[in-house]
Amino acid sequence: MNGLLTDLYQLTMAAGYHLAGKTGDRAVFELFMRRMPPNRNFVVAAGLQQAVEYLLNLSFGEEEVRYLKDLAQFSRMPERFFDDLRRFRFTGDLYAVPEGTPLFPGEPFLTLRAPLMEAQIPETYLLATVGFQSLVATKSARLVEAAGGRAVVEFGTRRAHSPEAGVLAARASYIGGCIGTSNTLAGFKYGIPVFGTAAHSWVQAFPNEAEAFRRLQDLLGAGTVYLIDTYDTLEGARRAAELGGEFWGVRLDSGNLAELARAVRVVLDEAGYRGAKIMATGDLNEHKILEFVAGGTPIDVFGVGTELVISSDAPNHGAIYKLVELETEGERRFTAKYSAEKSTLPGAKQVFRYAQRDVLSTADDCGTGDCEALLRPVIYGGKLIEELPSAAEARRNAMERVGRLPKKLRSLFECDPPWEVELSGRLKGLSETVRSEMEGNGG
Amino acid sequence: MNGLLTDLYQLTMAAGYHLAGKTGDRAVFELFMRRMPPNRNFVVAAGLQQAVEYLLNLSFGEEEVRYLKDLAQFSRMPERFFDDLRRFRFTGDLYAVPEGTPLFPGEPFLTLRAPLMEAQIPETYLLATVGFQSLVATKSARLVEAAGGRAVVEFGTRRAHSPEAGVLAARASYIGGCIGTSNTLAGFKYGIPVFGTAAHSWVQAFPNEAEAFRRLQDLLGAGTVYLIDTYDTLEGARRAAELGGEFWGVRLDSGNLAELARAVRVVLDEAGYRGAKIMATGDLNEHKILEFVAGGTPIDVFGVGTELVISSDAPNHGAIYKLVELETEGERRFTAKYSAEKSTLPGAKQVFRYAQRDVLSTADDCGTGDCEALLRPVIYGGKLIEELPSAAEARRNAMERVGRLPKKLRSLFECDPPWEVELSGRLKGLSETVRSEMEGNGG
Repeated sequence: MNGLLTDLYQLTMAAGYHLAGKTGDRAVFELFMRRMPPNRNFVVAAGLQQAVEYLLNLSFGEEEVRYLKDLAQFSRMPERFFDDLRRFRFTGDLYAVPEGTPLFPGEPFLTLRAPLMEAQIPETYLLATVGFQSLVATKSARLVEAAGGRAVVEFGTRRAHSPEAGVLAARASYIGGCIGTSNTLAGFKYGIPVFGTAAHSWVQAFPNEAEAFRRLQDLLGAGTVYLIDTYDTLEGARRAAELGGEFWGVRLDSGNLAELARAVRVVLDEAGYRGAKIMATGDLNEHKILEFVAGGTPIDVFGVGTELVISSDAPNHGAIYKLVELETEGERRFTAKYSAEKSTLPGAKQVFRYAQRDVLSTADDCGTGDCEALLRPVIYGGKLIEELPSAAEARRNAMERVGRLPKKLRSLFECDPPWEVELSGRLKGLSETVRSEMEGNGG
Repeated sequence: MNGLLTDLYQLTMAAGYHLAGKTGDRAVFELFMRRMPPNRNFVVAAGLQQAVEYLLNLSFGEEEVRYLKDLAQFSRMPERFFDDLRRFRFTGDLYAVPEGTPLFPGEPFLTLRAPLMEAQIPETYLLATVGFQSLVATKSARLVEAAGGRAVVEFGTRRAHSPEAGVLAARASYIGGCIGTSNTLAGFKYGIPVFGTAAHSWVQAFPNEAEAFRRLQDLLGAGTVYLIDTYDTLEGARRAAELGGEFWGVRLDSGNLAELARAVRVVLDEAGYRGAKIMATGDLNEHKILEFVAGGTPIDVFGVGTELVISSDAPNHGAIYKLVELETEGERRFTAKYSAEKSTLPGAKQVFRYAQRDVLSTADDCGTGDCEALLRPVIYGGKLIEELPSAAEARRNAMERVGRLPKKLRSLFECDPPWEVELSGRLKGLSETVRSEMEGNGG
């Protein structure tokens, strides 16, 4: 992974720490969301696999080092610094919650403990990959909740913010509960089930719809999904049924989907295709899906694109990455920020999950009673401790854990009161101590 | 570029065309926006370089081919099809408007002419890269317009939809008019000026703010930007001034930016730092910038992150990729769609730009009088015709062409009437012919 894929200031700070003789300092940074994105009562953590791949492979090539040397910002740096970059590898520790775990404001998705420079440089990449994938996994969980047991498939790569974002959106959607994706590379790389048959251009590429359907049936047999809205949806449904032979079902992509689905269902049933499924696509979201489900619309599978991969109603993940501890020459300092809008708590943390609430505590605290510590070691001394769960395992984790949340938290709207995140006595004490120290020395 | 980075149905359609004996068919597809994103009066085309790199390098590795062979969708395909995939390369033609060109609804960003399968597979990737970058370049142009001559810098990689999206967002922001980016890889790859000095964690990593500032000055000298809001913004400004020595300026990242900027300006001026600049960051957008500028707020540089890289008010590019012509065994057919919401026009097109309007015409039409044909050949027979303009050249093109648009189009709100896109007589005639043919044969 190219070490330059970060904000320049991470690299100038790395240089500055080098110059200030702080290469021996060890830092602890935490990545978390200060508040929930709008209408969310939890966020499904995702993106850990990419975070780990990044940390284990982060390096600076010779050309990259030369590029930095030529920048004015590095003109005062000795050759030793550039040699350190050439030799750079991540030697620290990573703690994280398993992918698929629902999290709440202030709870770390991950914690990095490493030499200051190694912990600073990854900030940008970690925020972008964990923040984005968590956003999409969360949106996926909303769609799946709304679908109430019917299937949701991710179809949005073309609308993603770059093709690479499409691959990660497919992965995150699957973790959040979608049954699969249209993104073939995501299928190949992550073992995610892939879906898709034909577009309008297929129908247009043949002299008429009947021939287009017949040719598709030649290819896909019982797996065929006929896209029936290119010319006239009900005509399309009739043509599909008249062709005979087995097929999986039909897809509607335009018009009044609720009315059309009912009418198409009648056409298919009357033709003896009671088992044929109806898939709907076209600007769907959780609210439209909820209306279809509530109204008993005969749609079996929802294909969602745009709104899922860009998380349209909440496209900004808002995650932050904050320094919480720093050890300089054997002396440990806790850092925090105390302000109305942007306060943060000092010290490395642990999250203890109980049945009805979480306790956010210091990392060396112990949970009491029936609870689970969510943050677990993933990388230790620069080495991966054990293989990460697959996307399918992360998905199972999400389904299980989201399913266990109180029903009111799975509402599509903000619930009040939200899930309780209580601060442990030790964390409160530490926070008060740090606050009075900071007030004492005036910053 | 991995051929699997596409929707599965592009590949099943490719297989189906193979099976139907249509590998000799030649198709023309156009990529365009049916309508403007909200509040936009034009869209700045961007992403052509990535589209070209993709087309020239698109291929299928052996593992990828084996993955497809194992999918049920390809179970009926003969080995010859997989051999064709192994040998796949793009042999067609690409026409496109130069990056930085403002476009309007219905006008092609690019046109692909190629064997049907080669034109079908790229749809997903082309939409995602051109759509996304055009969205961000457009947002950038809005921010730059609002800033009225003051500088805007892109700082948003951490909020982008994946780290790779951050690199492309940096590139697109620069094309749209930003003066540079914090994304170092974008600087390295595309020659974009890079900016950035230090974060709050830098200030927190030293025993006090004064030492943090001094250490930064050691590194950056006259280029230093002090981030002054970690503890108390005005105190921070005084500390920066007291340090003595040259520095570039200060950065404000929280609080009431307008009030703080005025107060900080006074502190700096009184200390004799009349040349020191003030940069502001923190959830900025074009409307806030406009208010600062209108109010004469002494902010010299705006750093914009989230709202720029995810184009918050319009995160969906909505671009589409449509089949407009198909040649089968020497016979050419024009394809179109006629419906209230989703109609498209048949045939390959050209855009002629006049001073006060565009004329959308058939590709073989001629412009009359003082106009420019916007779509130009880029790839011919699978080969790049000439080197593409650099990001800096694309930026100059955008500045020049957007600057030439009537002022009312550069409003932050929809202008009425919008820029006129007239259909040429020939295009209208073709459309009517195709429509009556389609009605004749009932689809």
